[in-house]
Amino acid sequence: MPIYANDPSKRTWLSVSEESDFPIQNIPFGVFLTRDDIITIGTRIGDTAIDLGALHQLGYFEGIPLTDDIFLQDTLNDFISDGQKTWRLVRNRISEIFEESNETLQNKEDHKNVVLFSMDEIEMQLPVQIGDYTDFYSSKEHATNVGTMFRDPDNALLPNWLHIPVGYHGRSSTIIPSGTPIHRPMGQTLPKGAETPVFGPSRLVDFELEMAFITTDTNVLGEPISVDEAEEYIFGMVLFNDWSARDIQKWEYVPLGPFLAKNFASSVSPWIVTLDALQPFQVKSTEQEPKPLPYLQQKERHSYDINLQVAIATKDGNETTISESNFKYMYWTMAQQLAHHTVNGCKVNSGDMMGSGTISGPTPDSYGSMLELSWQGTKPVKLKDGTERKFIQDNDTVIMKGYCSNNDIRIGFGEVRTTLLPPFEAKKKG
Amino acid sequence: MPIYANDPSKRTWLSVSEESDFPIQNIPFGVFLTRDDIITIGTRIGDTAIDLGALHQLGYFEGIPLTDDIFLQDTLNDFISDGQKTWRLVRNRISEIFEESNETLQNKEDHKNVVLFSMDEIEMQLPVQIGDYTDFYSSKEHATNVGTMFRDPDNALLPNWLHIPVGYHGRSSTIIPSGTPIHRPMGQTLPKGAETPVFGPSRLVDFELEMAFITTDTNVLGEPISVDEAEEYIFGMVLFNDWSARDIQKWEYVPLGPFLAKNFASSVSPWIVTLDALQPFQVKSTEQEPKPLPYLQQKERHSYDINLQVAIATKDGNETTISESNFKYMYWTMAQQLAHHTVNGCKVNSGDMMGSGTISGPTPDSYGSMLELSWQGTKPVKLKDGTERKFIQDNDTVIMKGYCSNNDIRIGFGEVRTTLLPPFEAKKKG
Repeated sequence: MPIYANDPSKRTWLSVSEESDFPIQNIPFGVFLTRDDIITIGTRIGDTAIDLGALHQLGYFEGIPLTDDIFLQDTLNDFISDGQKTWRLVRNRISEIFEESNETLQNKEDHKNVVLFSMDEIEMQLPVQIGDYTDFYSSKEHATNVGTMFRDPDNALLPNWLHIPVGYHGRSSTIIPSGTPIHRPMGQTLPKGAETPVFGPSRLVDFELEMAFITTDTNVLGEPISVDEAEEYIFGMVLFNDWSARDIQKWEYVPLGPFLAKNFASSVSPWIVTLDALQPFQVKSTEQEPKPLPYLQQKERHSYDINLQVAIATKDGNETTISESNFKYMYWTMAQQLAHHTVNGCKVNSGDMMGSGTISGPTPDSYGSMLELSWQGTKPVKLKDGTERKFIQDNDTVIMKGYCSNNDIRIGFGEVRTTLLPPFEAKKKG
Repeated sequence: MPIYANDPSKRTWLSVSEESDFPIQNIPFGVFLTRDDIITIGTRIGDTAIDLGALHQLGYFEGIPLTDDIFLQDTLNDFISDGQKTWRLVRNRISEIFEESNETLQNKEDHKNVVLFSMDEIEMQLPVQIGDYTDFYSSKEHATNVGTMFRDPDNALLPNWLHIPVGYHGRSSTIIPSGTPIHRPMGQTLPKGAETPVFGPSRLVDFELEMAFITTDTNVLGEPISVDEAEEYIFGMVLFNDWSARDIQKWEYVPLGPFLAKNFASSVSPWIVTLDALQPFQVKSTEQEPKPLPYLQQKERHSYDINLQVAIATKDGNETTISESNFKYMYWTMAQQLAHHTVNGCKVNSGDMMGSGTISGPTPDSYGSMLELSWQGTKPVKLKDGTERKFIQDNDTVIMKGYCSNNDIRIGFGEVRTTLLPPFEAKKKG
């Protein structure tokens, strides 16, 4: 099926600024609360949010096999379950409805009144109910940096790293949408030189610049997804901030991996940009040497050229960009990650989320965490207001942005923005 | 509120054999498919399954604040969300309805026809939709055995083990009810002495004898659950077989923990036995030295005296008990596990499942995995049919049972039974 919606020459009758992440070629999917306190599934063009539930009730999706309530839900899971063919039909139809020359909705004020919202009238929600969340560790630069700091610079990569898209399970219940503040976590840490741990607020709270993909669900328990089919099971992507408490992590993570150091929060951007919309930005992946085992050998190994930025805003609103990276730096592709995840028969469901792991580029200004940017606190990062950061301080806001662009169009993710508040107990007392 | 249902002198008008795990004092909760292909929430007394949805429609729960459809669901999550007070009211009421002297239902044939089923008429389902699954590692004997085999016998326990109820996140999507067969997983392993991995069926498939508890959901993101309140958030427990592929585990687990070695399947017994029903079997926990940090210091530290058994049945049905352990051996209590899990503000939801970790006792016949029972394959375990096992073979069935008993009553969990089939691909070809 042609992805008609991707045509870069298309123009819309809605107003879209040139630097918008959401031209008519994007058509992402999200869930929002309307001014009437109704939860609905929607999309966005420019700064206009579009209620797909209302559009569907008005008959604009006629001819596409959709249940009546598919968009009148508080998560995208059922729609994602409908599969790639349906996603494409719906995205193409939306594109058609909002195309410049199409007057059907354009001239119906009563329809527009119930379908269109300005972004400041709505409140974005988590787009999916996440059944399981997996986090990978697929940036060679990040794994090398961490291995250099924590283990041995001469053997920074562990022996399995070049053979396995290393991953582990994370916590679904604490994945939150952009805009939800979090508290500095409390926990056990082992002070330098001490033999017994102490309890208190983490002193080394960090972000991790990641992206995550969201899956659909057609494999069954026991049956793997092949690497060449894997992208058909991926609905789209979001920006992902995998909050981390480095001091808690260091004390707890051997031998079963990070736990409380990670599960206090992970934040996501609210609009899922479909893999279809990202197709024009496919780029060849970096060579893999040694060659991976056959089940990980992908015929057309490609990544996506997605520019990524991290900024810290201090309490007074002063914002400093502290990292510029790119998703294309990943060593393992999403298809390889998903093929590996299911090669043992592990079942994947609609709405599952899989994080890339921290995306660090080759240069120090492209590292994806404070741990790396400040090199374990030895090189503090300067902010515009003259202060320095080794890690994230209370009331700092971490903002991640992502976009693709070529000569024709720009397709973006918007942002994920999260403020770190003081510890929960301290707030109660205050 | 008195737990009237626990009265050991109670007798029921239903037939219950003396060695049943399900006397009128148990009243567990589960989900089943009836002979009419309807999914409902139910309980069990003796070998009679009781449709709580039908009982509720007939008015038997009058006076208890329950929504009309609370039992007409395919998971217990909403009922568990109702909280401890409601669980007790319902369990007490069921006890009353089936008590010997109560003739209300006993004499109504038309009601009994829609409420009561024999166990062979129904099909048990997974009792909850598991939002998140966490596995702990809380048996000192197990952690010591594994540390002795894999690391250093003189420093078998890692430095954090006596301070932290070590845990990690697992995969929810592959938790399956008793009776669902699984396939031997495929995966990467590193042959002894080799430098590059190979791909193939795991050769070291193992069970792990665990129990898991199921939580309710009244904490909010950022707010911890205190150790002394923690048991109020626990609905009940099930038997839990955490299937493991030791060779895959060994190659993949450093540094982020086990992943594909564990997430191909975990099996649970279908009836959730409430913590209330287990109250008569509370026993004092083993002393903890060193004393844990204050947030883990529980006023009345107790475990539960639950006898556990593991058996292997070969394809011809020959069954051999290979381990007898007890839940009381756990070093960390469930309350300590839950307090630790939430001390950083991690949110817990209704239906979350938390595994104990392998429950090994102090003697070699009480170890909770083949890894320990066969001491890494060096001491094969003899079965009744004359064959030996180092690990689990294709077409073996692993059966775990658990029960409490004192002079008055026996409260049991039934069993979790899972057959290991050959690898998925091999089956397709055959």
